[in-house]
Amino acid sequence: MAANLIGRQTIAFNGLPRLVSAYTIVGRLEGQGPYRDFFHEILDDDLVGQKTPEKAERHILEKAVNEALRHKGLAPQDIQFYISGDLLNQVISAVFSARSLGIPFLGIFSACATFAQGLGLGSALLQGGFADRVVVATSSHYQTAERQYRYPVELNIQHRPTNQHTVTGAGACVLSLEGEGPKITHATFGKVVDMGLKDPNDMGSAMAPAVFAALEQHLQDTGRGPDYYDLILTGDLGRQGLKMLRILAERTGLSLDSRLQDGGALIYGGNPKTGAGASGAACSAVMALGFVNAQLQAGKLHKVLLVGSGALLNQLTVQQGDSIPTVAHAVAIEA
Amino acid sequence: MAANLIGRQTIAFNGLPRLVSAYTIVGRLEGQGPYRDFFHEILDDDLVGQKTPEKAERHILEKAVNEALRHKGLAPQDIQFYISGDLLNQVISAVFSARSLGIPFLGIFSACATFAQGLGLGSALLQGGFADRVVVATSSHYQTAERQYRYPVELNIQHRPTNQHTVTGAGACVLSLEGEGPKITHATFGKVVDMGLKDPNDMGSAMAPAVFAALEQHLQDTGRGPDYYDLILTGDLGRQGLKMLRILAERTGLSLDSRLQDGGALIYGGNPKTGAGASGAACSAVMALGFVNAQLQAGKLHKVLLVGSGALLNQLTVQQGDSIPTVAHAVAIEA
Repeated sequence: MAANLIGRQTIAFNGLPRLVSAYTIVGRLEGQGPYRDFFHEILDDDLVGQKTPEKAERHILEKAVNEALRHKGLAPQDIQFYISGDLLNQVISAVFSARSLGIPFLGIFSACATFAQGLGLGSALLQGGFADRVVVATSSHYQTAERQYRYPVELNIQHRPTNQHTVTGAGACVLSLEGEGPKITHATFGKVVDMGLKDPNDMGSAMAPAVFAALEQHLQDTGRGPDYYDLILTGDLGRQGLKMLRILAERTGLSLDSRLQDGGALIYGGNPKTGAGASGAACSAVMALGFVNAQLQAGKLHKVLLVGSGALLNQLTVQQGDSIPTVAHAVAIEA
Repeated sequence: MAANLIGRQTIAFNGLPRLVSAYTIVGRLEGQGPYRDFFHEILDDDLVGQKTPEKAERHILEKAVNEALRHKGLAPQDIQFYISGDLLNQVISAVFSARSLGIPFLGIFSACATFAQGLGLGSALLQGGFADRVVVATSSHYQTAERQYRYPVELNIQHRPTNQHTVTGAGACVLSLEGEGPKITHATFGKVVDMGLKDPNDMGSAMAPAVFAALEQHLQDTGRGPDYYDLILTGDLGRQGLKMLRILAERTGLSLDSRLQDGGALIYGGNPKTGAGASGAACSAVMALGFVNAQLQAGKLHKVLLVGSGALLNQLTVQQGDSIPTVAHAVAIEA
């Protein structure tokens, strides 16, 4: 069996790739929430002076990467791989940021689980001896996601209580086998799960079973109980999805209690404009690289399991009557 | 420096991952071309009895994977990672095939360079000790790509001579460190290149500089001349892009001659319906896993460099006046 594979689906990083630098940018609304002090930058203007929200999204993604590099005195040529993806068709935010950065580009996609997928893949490339440093980054933007997946914001369509509000933001990090910072110890990449749910206005419920499957598999593969971790942070289930996940866990006797939290349920602090909470490829990135990273560095958290989840639908799959496939990837991070 | 990195951008697979099983499916038009005898299956009906071309595309992708597994007596649970992507928004063909297969899923995207990216990433996961076997697969479909990127085929819009015809097909392979089959020796992952071209009807010209950059970097990193390889097969530049690439090579004194061929220029044998030739995420997959694989196994080719290229645009980037970012990834395969 492969040397760095444990159990069925979990890979172990014995070389202990470290998260040596991080930078997070969030929009105005995210900057009004209870986690505002953990983000590196809060935008005054979600369009950052650009003509379109798509150009704004790629701009903040690029900036997050450049700042993560700058804080360690690194230049793009010090990095072997730029691993990035986003929610837009053909991951154009990632693509255009890669064009400016000039780092060999690996485009990835698993919707809002993209950041967790990237952390795992980047760590594997380091551990495998293929790179000295990699950058992993994702972005999302409320206005770009709304008009692509739902309706242009100008129509002011009424949202449902189970709708989630796409985070405007970007998170970027540098991973390296050398240097100081939290260690990435394991990644459990999930299978695609589809329980037959079809409501694109309730993606939290659709994603909960995939999160549960990845979490259960991670615990089984590592022989750990949930209490091994101080915090199990799901990416963006929102309040509805989190409720579903708690029900699934209770039914199988898995006690998660308050150590289970969800980035999407936390970031807006229950702001009524934001439905069931946040979603978006930036949500787990800014909560992990802003909040979790700071708490690990400050010694307030020691062992965290990040479980990113993605709803893998598009407009056409909804129109053609397909149910919503989902995926989750779990990444263990220790101080 | 990282142990398996040579030069600036090339990774070496000393464990020699092998391509142990492959299966290719193509549509009717591809099945009329000069490479028909190399494909494992030719469709009678490009819709394969499905209600929509999107459902047809995911159906053939899934079938290609299942057949590649079946030919070696493998089941999905024998595979650690399913690495897949396609041209459709949110890579839905890959996603839905992953749902049926039940293998941990890594979604990737670099347009028509997706297959080459997958081969390189899959080989890295094997070499790094993270998996015993991985599956890499991509698909594309003329009808799904036309209606997403251009116009629905029912409108019968006149194509330009530089337009390329998206391959209907799917290619899947099993990579493993054990077993018999061609060896994957190196991968050079490219940077995103954009020379300012804006014509979405001439993607070959847009991609040629990225292919040239990846090829030149690969040769520099490995210290090889083009004559090291019996065949340098670009993925889908088409005749126009191939002409541009030859001009770029000549200007720098790189002699490529007839050892340089292009999958997109070859597959239809100059059928006038197909403009400048083929494109699509399946194009390089079926040419590599059908033609190249067979020639390597038969001893007619010994050393092949596959250079996949992708035009990383979407409808919105064209509408917003952006030029076309492109990328190319080179993978060396030996008998």
